[in-house]
Amino acid sequence: METIKVGIIGATGYAGVELIRLLLGHPKAKITALCSVSFEGKPISEIYPALYQINDDILVDEDTVIDQCDVVFASVPHGVSEQLAVKCLSKGKLLIDLGADFRLHEEQDYQQWYHGSYQHPEAHAHAIYSIPEITGDAVKSAQVIANPGCYPTSIAIGLAPALKNGLISKKGIVIDSKSGVTGAGRGLTQNTHYPECNEAFAPYKVGTHRHTPEIEQMLSELAGEKLTVTFVPHLLPVNRGIVSTIYADLAKEISAQEIHQIYQQMYGKKQFVRVLKLGDIPNLKNVRYSNYCDVGIFVDDRAKKLIVVSAIDNMVKGAAGQAIQNMNLKCGMDEDCGLHLVPPAI
Amino acid sequence: METIKVGIIGATGYAGVELIRLLLGHPKAKITALCSVSFEGKPISEIYPALYQINDDILVDEDTVIDQCDVVFASVPHGVSEQLAVKCLSKGKLLIDLGADFRLHEEQDYQQWYHGSYQHPEAHAHAIYSIPEITGDAVKSAQVIANPGCYPTSIAIGLAPALKNGLISKKGIVIDSKSGVTGAGRGLTQNTHYPECNEAFAPYKVGTHRHTPEIEQMLSELAGEKLTVTFVPHLLPVNRGIVSTIYADLAKEISAQEIHQIYQQMYGKKQFVRVLKLGDIPNLKNVRYSNYCDVGIFVDDRAKKLIVVSAIDNMVKGAAGQAIQNMNLKCGMDEDCGLHLVPPAI
Amino acid sequence: METIKVGIIGATGYAGVELIRLLLGHPKAKITALCSVSFEGKPISEIYPALYQINDDILVDEDTVIDQCDVVFASVPHGVSEQLAVKCLSKGKLLIDLGADFRLHEEQDYQQWYHGSYQHPEAHAHAIYSIPEITGDAVKSAQVIANPGCYPTSIAIGLAPALKNGLISKKGIVIDSKSGVTGAGRGLTQNTHYPECNEAFAPYKVGTHRHTPEIEQMLSELAGEKLTVTFVPHLLPVNRGIVSTIYADLAKEISAQEIHQIYQQMYGKKQFVRVLKLGDIPNLKNVRYSNYCDVGIFVDDRAKKLIVVSAIDNMVKGAAGQAIQNMNLKCGMDEDCGLHLVPPAI
Amino acid sequence: METIKVGIIGATGYAGVELIRLLLGHPKAKITALCSVSFEGKPISEIYPALYQINDDILVDEDTVIDQCDVVFASVPHGVSEQLAVKCLSKGKLLIDLGADFRLHEEQDYQQWYHGSYQHPEAHAHAIYSIPEITGDAVKSAQVIANPGCYPTSIAIGLAPALKNGLISKKGIVIDSKSGVTGAGRGLTQNTHYPECNEAFAPYKVGTHRHTPEIEQMLSELAGEKLTVTFVPHLLPVNRGIVSTIYADLAKEISAQEIHQIYQQMYGKKQFVRVLKLGDIPNLKNVRYSNYCDVGIFVDDRAKKLIVVSAIDNMVKGAAGQAIQNMNLKCGMDEDCGLHLVPPAI
Repeated sequence: METIKVGIIGATGYAGVELIRLLLGHPKAKITALCSVSFEGKPISEIYPALYQINDDILVDEDTVIDQCDVVFASVPHGVSEQLAVKCLSKGKLLIDLGADFRLHEEQDYQQWYHGSYQHPEAHAHAIYSIPEITGDAVKSAQVIANPGCYPTSIAIGLAPALKNGLISKKGIVIDSKSGVTGAGRGLTQNTHYPECNEAFAPYKVGTHRHTPEIEQMLSELAGEKLTVTFVPHLLPVNRGIVSTIYADLAKEISAQEIHQIYQQMYGKKQFVRVLKLGDIPNLKNVRYSNYCDVGIFVDDRAKKLIVVSAIDNMVKGAAGQAIQNMNLKCGMDEDCGLHLVPPAI
Repeated sequence: METIKVGIIGATGYAGVELIRLLLGHPKAKITALCSVSFEGKPISEIYPALYQINDDILVDEDTVIDQCDVVFASVPHGVSEQLAVKCLSKGKLLIDLGADFRLHEEQDYQQWYHGSYQHPEAHAHAIYSIPEITGDAVKSAQVIANPGCYPTSIAIGLAPALKNGLISKKGIVIDSKSGVTGAGRGLTQNTHYPECNEAFAPYKVGTHRHTPEIEQMLSELAGEKLTVTFVPHLLPVNRGIVSTIYADLAKEISAQEIHQIYQQMYGKKQFVRVLKLGDIPNLKNVRYSNYCDVGIFVDDRAKKLIVVSAIDNMVKGAAGQAIQNMNLKCGMDEDCGLHLVPPAI
Repeated sequence: METIKVGIIGATGYAGVELIRLLLGHPKAKITALCSVSFEGKPISEIYPALYQINDDILVDEDTVIDQCDVVFASVPHGVSEQLAVKCLSKGKLLIDLGADFRLHEEQDYQQWYHGSYQHPEAHAHAIYSIPEITGDAVKSAQVIANPGCYPTSIAIGLAPALKNGLISKKGIVIDSKSGVTGAGRGLTQNTHYPECNEAFAPYKVGTHRHTPEIEQMLSELAGEKLTVTFVPHLLPVNRGIVSTIYADLAKEISAQEIHQIYQQMYGKKQFVRVLKLGDIPNLKNVRYSNYCDVGIFVDDRAKKLIVVSAIDNMVKGAAGQAIQNMNLKCGMDEDCGLHLVPPAI
Repeated sequence: METIKVGIIGATGYAGVELIRLLLGHPKAKITALCSVSFEGKPISEIYPALYQINDDILVDEDTVIDQCDVVFASVPHGVSEQLAVKCLSKGKLLIDLGADFRLHEEQDYQQWYHGSYQHPEAHAHAIYSIPEITGDAVKSAQVIANPGCYPTSIAIGLAPALKNGLISKKGIVIDSKSGVTGAGRGLTQNTHYPECNEAFAPYKVGTHRHTPEIEQMLSELAGEKLTVTFVPHLLPVNRGIVSTIYADLAKEISAQEIHQIYQQMYGKKQFVRVLKLGDIPNLKNVRYSNYCDVGIFVDDRAKKLIVVSAIDNMVKGAAGQAIQNMNLKCGMDEDCGLHLVPPAI
């Protein structure tokens, strides 16, 4: 197969620059054009000196990216991707959107949580939401790929086998997630100013985070009925990683061993999901810089609850890595092409 | 009132050295003797150079402490305090135990979770478990004070008004706690080795932490009936602080405003509990190095759940500070004597 | 003595809020008015929730502070303090300036390094630069106190005995300093954005930092002749603290023991300078949150160099603590009043 | 070329597990056997769960490694590698030693700094010390490769062009280095216990670090005469990375531009050394997880000093990466084979 020309719109955001890191190691994709509204005309390596002498491409405008590339990754503020999709569709380019514009099936969910409406409803018909380990090959029919959010990825993978197999009650699911600070992006805020973020820890957007409808949409599909969850994200003083600790009432008498076996049946052959041995606990340090999602299974016999712990790198499996995984699938390459990333042990 | 002579057994542990820091600023207590089994004969400031020229006391044995002091703080491994209590009782000294030996009312709970049995059951009759904001003046009749654990303190304060006032269901309470690394103590482990603890995050002892029976004991008393909780602690890469995010089903239709008012009724006059304004979120950075417990109230209307977030400094309100608060109450001083600790904003 | 009414202009900056923390524990000073240009009309505790229910004062304008207070602390951008001094002088109020406006004796130094000129030269005649351990009682004659910079404090204390006693060459002194991030202030920058500051380390302003003339001015006075140093600051991924590692050629054959003795002669009775035992190494963790400066002495026999290591908390001895120490001296109180701050061992 | 069978003795140390991470991505090397004295019989992924399902090899003894592999990497305590060399030499296997046993040319240096003597002097005749950017192809004649220490690598690369071209005085060089905590290894110590290492910073082994003779040996070769340096390492609260700030007196009038040009002449074609543009400052965050050494050049005109700042990842260019680079050179592969590691921007 030939090399695919790829470009990134929003290349100087954190997901954008992580895409660059991963694509530089992809044997069948070639970074062809990078766009940044804020830094157009400058080399990317001036914004990120880590890339000096590795990629010194000059940042261009979005049309150049779309024109020169076969695959366009977009990591831009919500509300911006729709018109990118229209352009890409008209030119027959694949758009992989790392933002929220195409994730929600129902426009009313988008209206409720993002306070905007669809400007190009027709574009949505071509979009597919894809967590490959769950949605499988669906992505192959996409012209626009809605790449999932970081929290939803960690949660959906954590709960899918339990929901699909009716192991847990659909009511009262509690999701307590903790994310590293890169999840908040490159933009400066007081909360992410080093002296106020270091040696600090707190939840944020308690019960009101915009990933909630995306989480509920995916879990409802898995459950076969509409469900509602309680989701509380927390800001963790580390750069990367999400740990989601998920609590659900068991729907029946079942042992941890049996649940573990069901998880292994679903994920045993999925390269990027590691169902840990019973008793082993996921730690975000073990998945950092890689595309793995580690899953741990626990049963609280006293309270008859299933506790699932999942860990991902929010920038990789939660963003750039999964986007490349989706590209690979859509473009007929091996799912893991360019994604053999070994998490550093230390 | 005269100055009280105080001593510490286990002075070189983290709770011990935090007691030293706080007692050095206590106007009515004088550090008189410090014991450490591991470092006897050395000055405390050799172990902790932060204390150099501030307190260079030579570490002595436990009997010297008991003999020379009116009040003995003990921060020692579980199973060791019982005999200290016997000695203190025989000599009319007040023992304030920061360990687990006297926290559980039922010996069978101790046996189940600590795998040991009481060697001196008679000593337990003189012990009072005291979280002053909840148990009030009960401590005044104590001869041995069972100082609460860090997690239980953060949780009991967070849930007391809700449980006492029947706002929440007694079933299915989920407690997701995150603690700084000082909670694991001074002893070296691979998990707390800097390169493996930094940029890492994970739960530990999922559903099996020894603070569980203490939490359930206190909450059951508040609820007026025996209850069971799901408790999952996590290790947070910060030095100090605990945030507990607590989820409970609402027992009735009630607004966040009404709940907030009930919390304020209970804690409005308690100096060390700050019920935050509705919408404000506790962050452990705001209580570090102080005796405060910050409490935030949230209602998830969609799932009909109360979410309480509480934050303490595990070494102060979760250990040394509360121990001094208990001493103050027991000894007839102002509850906040020596505890006017302003949390550094940065 | 009566209580002194103190106020802070620039109360929401990091030095300002640290002044609040320390002054809240000062037995003879009462915080009377707090000014912030950016947040006037809001309670300080809204900006810094750590202060909630401890100090909820509403932020006012600078004239109110000057009118209501006996002593005015100013922590404002350079160029702003001069007119504050004029106002304070005219109303007989003591100004303690934590900024750079009054630190340099020669206006040409100010012009060269700060690119501005003095608007009120007459005010400078009333200003005294004071590091009490070095400049002694000079501050007592001040009407405006020029509170030293953080780096200069750590360096001057580290070198004073060596320079005063002619132990080292005045040429070729190399100062390699490392500062925590609070030194960069509350303002947001990409460099201090958590994900870019965490797990990072680099020098900055190599050979061009504005503290250089202040350092050289103080060291030249100590040496009795004008000298030039090489000064390179580094940004350290911790909140607080400065370590300065200072290298100088020995001017004569002298042992570490003899040098140590000379340091002890100068600092033995100074409460806030701790000359460590030979072989012991200053660590910023041992001085955090306190007014101490720890000093360690080393001789490199092979290269005939003196190596001095000094550690301070940049927010305390390097800013707010030293400002209060200066106030105490000027106002006839004990030098250490309100400054009995025990550095937490952990 | 065929795939090379490689093994690691000391696989569970930090350098060992980093070798595994890098070798897993090497297209022409295959990890064939891993040895650990402490964990023999266990899978490596039990010690480092980051490797779970990636490499679950069972740890074996050292003889198995030597027998089964063409190239043996050893990362073991000093004093152990000599006998490994003897075994490898007798069996015609290449030993790449990441420890200190073969780094010093003069046994008396080893005796002085390591307090031991050579047990197998004959083995040393076959050993070559190799920093490829400096020593070039010398490694090709080695049967034992002495892989350099982390500090010496960062320092030698930083000073080589200046020393070779006589730009600086050979006297009075001051090297102030700061290293992340992985440099201290996997072994537990109080200094690297998270609560004592976090929010801390200090020098250690002031003027007495064992890398000093290795530094002086390399610099003396570059200078063409024996020289002595002042070397002070510091422990930095980050996982990875070394920044060395190096101060030397200029030997003649020369501009920063000219020096920069000389550095570029030496390193312009070296893939792993990036001489930054004048004014740009190396930061360890820009080289983490990669084999790059970033070098920044500064001239202090006032003090007539050259200031060189170099940054490496101590685990990669300072250990495992350079070891693989040496293997590549020795074995006739491209120098950068398997080392196309892009440092993550965040």
